[in-house]
Formats: sequence, structure tokens, C-alpha cells
Amino acid sequence: MNPIEYHDASEEVRAVYDDIKAARKVDDVNNFWKYLANEPRMLRHVWESLKEMMGPGHLDPAIKELIFTAVAITNNCEYCRVSHMTQARAKGATDEMINEMIGVVALANMTNRLVNAYKPPVDEMFLEKKD
Amino acid sequence: MNPIEYHDASEEVRAVYDDIKAARKVDDVNNFWKYLANEPRMLRHVWESLKEMMGPGHLDPAIKELIFTAVAITNNCEYCRVSHMTQARAKGATDEMINEMIGVVALANMTNRLVNAYKPPVDEMFLEKKD
Amino acid sequence: MNPIEYHDASEEVRAVYDDIKAARKVDDVNNFWKYLANEPRMLRHVWESLKEMMGPGHLDPAIKELIFTAVAITNNCEYCRVSHMTQARAKGATDEMINEMIGVVALANMTNRLVNAYKPPVDEMFLEKKD
Amino acid sequence: MNPIEYHDASEEVRAVYDDIKAARKVDDVNNFWKYLANEPRMLRHVWESLKEMMGPGHLDPAIKELIFTAVAITNNCEYCRVSHMTQARAKGATDEMINEMIGVVALANMTNRLVNAYKPPVDEMFLEKKD
Amino acid sequence: MNPIEYHDASEEVRAVYDDIKAARKVDDVNNFWKYLANEPRMLRHVWESLKEMMGPGHLDPAIKELIFTAVAITNNCEYCRVSHMTQARAKGATDEMINEMIGVVALANMTNRLVNAYKPPVDEMFLEKKD
Amino acid sequence: MNPIEYHDASEEVRAVYDDIKAARKVDDVNNFWKYLANEPRMLRHVWESLKEMMGPGHLDPAIKELIFTAVAITNNCEYCRVSHMTQARAKGATDEMINEMIGVVALANMTNRLVNAYKPPVDEMFLEKKD
Repeated sequence: MNPIEYHDASEEVRAVYDDIKAARKVDDVNNFWKYLANEPRMLRHVWESLKEMMGPGHLDPAIKELIFTAVAITNNCEYCRVSHMTQARAKGATDEMINEMIGVVALANMTNRLVNAYKPPVDEMFLEKKD
Repeated sequence: MNPIEYHDASEEVRAVYDDIKAARKVDDVNNFWKYLANEPRMLRHVWESLKEMMGPGHLDPAIKELIFTAVAITNNCEYCRVSHMTQARAKGATDEMINEMIGVVALANMTNRLVNAYKPPVDEMFLEKKD
Repeated sequence: MNPIEYHDASEEVRAVYDDIKAARKVDDVNNFWKYLANEPRMLRHVWESLKEMMGPGHLDPAIKELIFTAVAITNNCEYCRVSHMTQARAKGATDEMINEMIGVVALANMTNRLVNAYKPPVDEMFLEKKD
Repeated sequence: MNPIEYHDASEEVRAVYDDIKAARKVDDVNNFWKYLANEPRMLRHVWESLKEMMGPGHLDPAIKELIFTAVAITNNCEYCRVSHMTQARAKGATDEMINEMIGVVALANMTNRLVNAYKPPVDEMFLEKKD
Repeated sequence: MNPIEYHDASEEVRAVYDDIKAARKVDDVNNFWKYLANEPRMLRHVWESLKEMMGPGHLDPAIKELIFTAVAITNNCEYCRVSHMTQARAKGATDEMINEMIGVVALANMTNRLVNAYKPPVDEMFLEKKD
Repeated sequence: MNPIEYHDASEEVRAVYDDIKAARKVDDVNNFWKYLANEPRMLRHVWESLKEMMGPGHLDPAIKELIFTAVAITNNCEYCRVSHMTQARAKGATDEMINEMIGVVALANMTNRLVNAYKPPVDEMFLEKKD
């Protein structure tokens, strides 16, 4: 699939591009969006979801970018890692915070497999109380 | 493998159990540690790493528990999810923060696969500048 | 490991290469097979399985290539993605079908993690009736 | 987290529940939606995306449910597997089609790792031609 | 899908069951095979592959069961873990060997993510020399 | 993040580098360690764990490197694969052993998904007897 540039895009795609550029105050959208535009329905849904969930909310935007990066590291998605790490930094994450997040991700991936291997029963204190 | 209770544990294992109990101000260690004690070397290393990385540092401890939970959700590790979500709450995470984290994890897993599928080249602005 | 070309191959490996070339009406086998030939037992088993399962059956061959590609995208296997997407196209899949499949894969990876996070109990209507 | 029933739901959540019930001609929504309602923003986005992508389009709806199930099997998401396999059947997939899909998923997961291990270079015929 | 018992099985399936029973000197096949028999082609291919690869070869059979278990732990496949751990023990693996294997798997899953996060370039000494 | 060379390293990092160089009888540490040094706490913990677990124990060191490589192949971690395969060879693994291990890893990844799909109940003979 080829990336779709603004001048070649349908009206539907251009509307999303315009909204991304306005929201992020940038002159052009990143390659991710230009490729995703091959499926305009997903382009719209992904952008609408990210716009709402990654902005101000209950967690600091920099923290949300760090969580996004943590998933990308676990899944080995390189484009995702560098793009969201860049955004984490732009929103205030320091090198110290990023390095500590990486350590937590690494330890979690280790203990996840220790749990897979030994299958400890869930302790009573961890049982979720349903109403 | 069977869990190893304190009274059956070797001196090496007891020392780790004692340290966990002192650090967490609890009367007994969780099942995870009792099963991991079947490999005393890993018991020691995992505890030493978690003790140093999950305590006070550059990220808020509640945030680190949320990141840990984000990895557990991505990997579908149920014991890990409930134990670290419980700890996230104990350290101050609210339901609103947890639900927002879950949304971010879900979106990241979606966009990771869109990147796998379309393989957009990394934008110049995301390239990590090496000295 | 190095790829094994026809002229350097053992009789056992050549027999598989010949069968692939005849079945696919090609002059040479792809790199995947030349590397897999380092383990001639697997070369034989993988080819025999793919030959039987990917040909005519209960699903259209183009659909089976799309399912194969869906797994490759989930696992981030690049060689697998491009080779099976090429075969999907050769067997009749259009760009529209491929883009829609990619959207489904992305959504499935998202909802999989929402399920991991919230662990909804299986609805009665979904329980598989065993005889 | 607890499931949110219709009578306890906010107006925003009820609107989504009503739309799901109307679109699927059912009296109540499944557990997945009742738990996801803890994060109403994701509830809305996920439903809007699935409604648009899983209905009529370029691939047969039964095929899209099979692709969804293929991802769930790869990721070991049990709720996802049984719910989408049920929907695949409701939309016309037979046992023979499901079993063949499972075989393709298994083979793809095997060959993905053979590629990870041998790292064959992408054959020239598979290179995606960019305009 | 339901398991297929010997008395309900087709001739093709019975032939595989008979071969498994003879090779393993058991009176009945395990549940894995009874369910896989819903797709007789895969039943045959999987059995033929396992029979050839898991028996005597270049690695000790107990070691091959440990490697199989290591993958099952990484992927969180519970049936696979317990069945191959049982076979590892039957072929001579001790608790000490199993616990050490589990430790190696956990450490590998941790360092894999550290590599995903920091992306160190491959050292010259690790480059595979192709002829 | 940039790699940290010995002459730029803190005393804490240098101590780990010195220990690696002494233990492995090498003049310089690999890139993995130079990048990991950005988080000196993890550098120390990862090295201490690997030093203890990958050396002489209950499994042959070459076998442990093969298990490490098996996980790297499953997770598609390229740096991990080539570095541990190199070490497996240095510790005595032959090409035949490596190819057989790769075959086992591929088969395990296939049967893991067949289990995910058919969900066979665990046979009584595989149930772990807890004291």
C-alpha cells in the first residue's frame, strides 16, 4: 500500500487530516495516518478515539504516552515506540522517567512468565469484589 | 510445583520472605513468592529488582503499578493484573485512572497492528538523534 | 544459517523443492524454503501441511491467504505478511478486501485486551454445547 | 470492575446500549459491553468501529468473524473466541470452515517462528511496489 | 467442538490414534488429539511432525520437552505447559532442571523487552557469516 | 538513548562492566549492556541474574542458551536471537542441535494455537499433584 498525500486524498480523508493538523498544530500529518488512509473508515475511528483518550483526562498526557510506549515495547512495535516516546518527551517525560518505565516493562514481562509457569492461585486479598 | 510455606523454607528463602514482610508491612507473603521459592535464586533476584524499581523514583509508585498492569493486560496474565491493580489502588490510583489506562492499552494494541500491517517508514521527526 | 540452493541440496531436499515447483508452477522455490532446508524434516512436514491445507477446501484459497496474513500482522512477521499478501492478491483478493481485513485484525487486537482487562464472564448464549 | 446494567447506566451509556440492541435485534447487550461501560468513551468508540467494520463491506460478514476468531486464537482470548465463533456460525460459517480456519491459524503461527528463526530475506517478487 | 472418541472416529482418524497408542504404549490418546480430530488433516500432520521431531535426534528428548514447555510458558498455554512438563519429567527432567528452565525463560522475556526498548545495534561478533 | 562507553560511565556502571569483562574474559561489553546502562539499576539486576542463572547449574550452559534462543524466536527478538545463538555455539551447540531446537519451537507455537482453539480439558494424568 502507498501513503496517501493530502492532494490525492478524498474529501473524507482530507477532513480527518485537517482535524489532526488543527489539533496538533502541525503542517502535515505523520506517515502513520497517510498509510492508514487506505482504509478511510479506520482512519476516522482511530483518530477520533486517540483524540479523545490521549488528551486531558484522569491521567497526565505524558503518562498516557508512557503507557502507550510500554505496550509498544512489549509488542516490539518500533514505529509506535519511537513516535510515542517522542510525544511523551514533548509532553514532559524526562529520560529518567522513560528509563524507569522501561525497567518496569521488563520486570512485568519477566514476572508474567513466572506466573504462567507456576500458576499461583489468586490470593484472597486480590479478588475483585463484585457488588 | 507446590508453594513453600515459611516453616518449610530454607534459610535463604526465609531471608527473602522476611525482607518482603518488613518492606510491605504484611504478615505473610503472597502466593507468587511461595511458588517462586521453588527457584530460590530467582526469588532473590526478582524481589531485589522489584524492591528497587517499584518504590519511590522518577515516576509515582501508583503510575508504575498502572504500567505493570498495562503489560499484564497486553500479555493476558490474570494473576499479574489483579495483584498489580490492587497495588495501584492502594497507592492512590482511582477507578477513573484505571479505566483510562485500560483504554490507552487497548488503543495501543490496535495501532501496533495497523503499523505491522502498513509498515509506515519512521518520520524524520521521530528519528532518535544519537550523539 | 545459509540458504540451500538446489544444486547443493540432498536428494531428500530436492524432492521437496521439485514438488513445490511443480505444484506452484515456478522455476525456483522462495527463500523461506531454502533456509528451512537446513532442517529437512521440518521442510517436508511444513510443505506437506501447507500443500494440503492452503489449497481448495472449505474456504476460498484467497480467504485462507488473508487469514494467514491476519496472523502474520498480529505477530509482526514481516516476511510472512508480504509473502501471503502477495499470494492473497494472486488468488483474487482486492485492495479493498485487504484493507478491510487489516481493520478487523486491528479491532480484534483491541477488543482482546479490553476482555483481558475487564474479564467479562462468558454469556450463556456463547457457551459451547458439548454433546 | 462491575458490569453496568441498563437501569444503572448514564444516558450516554444507554444510548450505546439502545443502538446495539437495535442493530443486533436483541433484548440485552452482552457482558463485554456491560463491563466496557465503565469507560463510556471507549464503549462508544469500540461500538461505532465494530458496527461499521463488521457489517456488509468488501468481505463476507461470516469471513470477518472468522478473521476476528483467528486473531483471538492467536492471542488466546477465550471470551473473544467463543463470542466471535458464535457470530461466525450465525452468519453462515460451517464447522468445516471453522476447522479449516483453525488449521490455517496454527500453520501460520508455526511458519511465523520459522521465519523469525531463519530470517530469510524477502524475495524480490514479494517486494511491495510503491508508486 | 466435541472430542471424537475412537468408536465414533473415521478410519483415517483411527489410523492416527492407533499409531499414537502404539508409539507411546498407551491405551487411549489424550484430549488434545480427540479434539484435533475435528480436522483430520491437521491431526495427521501434527502427529507425523511431533513423532519425527520429538523422538531421538540431536537433542535429548527430555531437553526437547523442556524447550516445548519454555514456549508454552512464554505463550501462556496451560494445557501445553502441563502436558509437556509431564513428558519432560517422564523422560528424565528433574525439578531442579525445570525450575532452572523457568528462570531462563523469565529472564529471556525480560531481556527481550529491554532490547525492544533500547534497540542496540547487533555487535559485529554476532553477525551471522553467510558463505 | 545513546550507548554509554566505559570512559563516560559512572563508577556504578563501570563496576558492572568490569565484572562482565572479567566473567566473560572479553575486552569490552556488548552493545546490550552499553544501552542498558542508561538505567544503572536494571543494568546491575539483569547482570547479576544472568551471571547466576546462565552459568553452571542443573542444565548444561549450551542448553540454557538454546532455551534463551527459543524464547527470542517465539518473541521475534532479533538481537537476542543472534547473540544467544552465538553463545550457544560457543558453549558447544552444533548446527544440528540448533536446527532441531528451531523445529521444536515452531511445532510448539503451532500446537499452542490448536489448544487455544479447541480448549481440550487437561487430562487427569497431567494434573499436577499438589501435596
